Amino acid sequence: MANPTAAMLVIGDEILSGRTRDANMYHLAGRLTDLGIDLKEVRVVSDDAAEIVAAVNGLRGKFDHVFTSGGIGPTHDDITADNVAAAFGIGIDVREDAMDALATNYPDGRASINAARMRMARIPDGARLIDNSISKAPGFSVENVHVMAGVPKIFEAMLDSLLPSLKSGTPVVSETTRVDQPEGAVAGPLGDIAAEFATLSIGSYPFNTPQGFGTNLVVRGADAALVAQAAAKIRQTFGVE
Amino acid sequence: MANPTAAMLVIGDEILSGRTRDANMYHLAGRLTDLGIDLKEVRVVSDDAAEIVAAVNGLRGKFDHVFTSGGIGPTHDDITADNVAAAFGIGIDVREDAMDALATNYPDGRASINAARMRMARIPDGARLIDNSISKAPGFSVENVHVMAGVPKIFEAMLDSLLPSLKSGTPVVSETTRVDQPEGAVAGPLGDIAAEFATLSIGSYPFNTPQGFGTNLVVRGADAALVAQAAAKIRQTFGVE
Repeated sequence: MANPTAAMLVIGDEILSGRTRDANMYHLAGRLTDLGIDLKEVRVVSDDAAEIVAAVNGLRGKFDHVFTSGGIGPTHDDITADNVAAAFGIGIDVREDAMDALATNYPDGRASINAARMRMARIPDGARLIDNSISKAPGFSVENVHVMAGVPKIFEAMLDSLLPSLKSGTPVVSETTRVDQPEGAVAGPLGDIAAEFATLSIGSYPFNTPQGFGTNLVVRGADAALVAQAAAKIRQTFGVE
Repeated sequence: MANPTAAMLVIGDEILSGRTRDANMYHLAGRLTDLGIDLKEVRVVSDDAAEIVAAVNGLRGKFDHVFTSGGIGPTHDDITADNVAAAFGIGIDVREDAMDALATNYPDGRASINAARMRMARIPDGARLIDNSISKAPGFSVENVHVMAGVPKIFEAMLDSLLPSLKSGTPVVSETTRVDQPEGAVAGPLGDIAAEFATLSIGSYPFNTPQGFGTNLVVRGADAALVAQAAAKIRQTFGVE
């Protein structure tokens, strides 16, 4: 059976302006790979209502899961929750269970929840909450769209809460062989190996160092024995110990 | 006049599998911001012909520029050039000027260009070459789509060649104020300031450290005097020196 598929939607002007270097994409990609959920696409859009709605609706019909990061805080520029609700055509309002979760973040509980913080308890109708062990304001899932914070520590904590509830697939295993030759020298024989092991994904990733160009050859697939066989062929072909 | 707009398309299974951490998005975002070209969207897609064609065609009609990274090397999994040609419905073939550029990478020139390396001289009909000062295999532009390598050093070198030829806009200036209070405490007054300076973009970016939560408040806009005025108001409001 095919693995579940996923897309990620990163929401944030700070990424597109180059102010902030995204960390969540790399983290999510690794976590999903370990679970056998295939991340197929990532989009980064700005803090713009129409763009968020279009991206959510474009991705949620195409993939089994959509993971979003960013834009669910208490400030005026946090517009993700409202626009996820708009994408689904459902209502959104302050919810008691979200207020309860949020209140645990403050020594004096609900008394600290000012009008701004109350925005973080606005949850689309029927959504399931995602626990936030760091700052308590929850994320949420509407159908197959999982809405999480942009701050990496909080994003990661929400993923810790969410991922065990998702159906996983067959984890892809990979073997990487480093060859100290440029891609142009390995490409021909590598193409033959890729054709021989057509059910595997064989990728070639060049790098450069002060000592010159090299290539990482990565074999990926669900069949570990076959991956090992292809990697052995690669090592033999390119004289790698 | 509005600034030129741009999208980026990152092509590569290695990013989506979590094997490689993308560096080109952050670099491009910073370079474009300096030039007053507004990066509005980023997509990451896998090494899949249909996905590449769909993304190129989805983005090139929507933005003034599309910058791609990845998939233009000599190996079997480098399919970007063919699929950019397919997206435009134009031909692609080995081109003499690209062969000349490529040959300068090898001590014995064209004699070193084996069949695999010759793939790197395949250029869509009518494309303009983009110089590659590192490994010489050129990138290319078809209309408003600029096709570059995924290896960060080469991507950056190609940008160095390309960007001076593009029409720039009015660079956005920004001022960042660090406030050692959580977002929920600054959100109310900040919303008032954002409403007062409605022509500016005012963003709020929470962070957490072992000492607790804080918030970076970022004012962005083309009018430097107005940005300074809004930043001064923020410092005064939140008691920052």
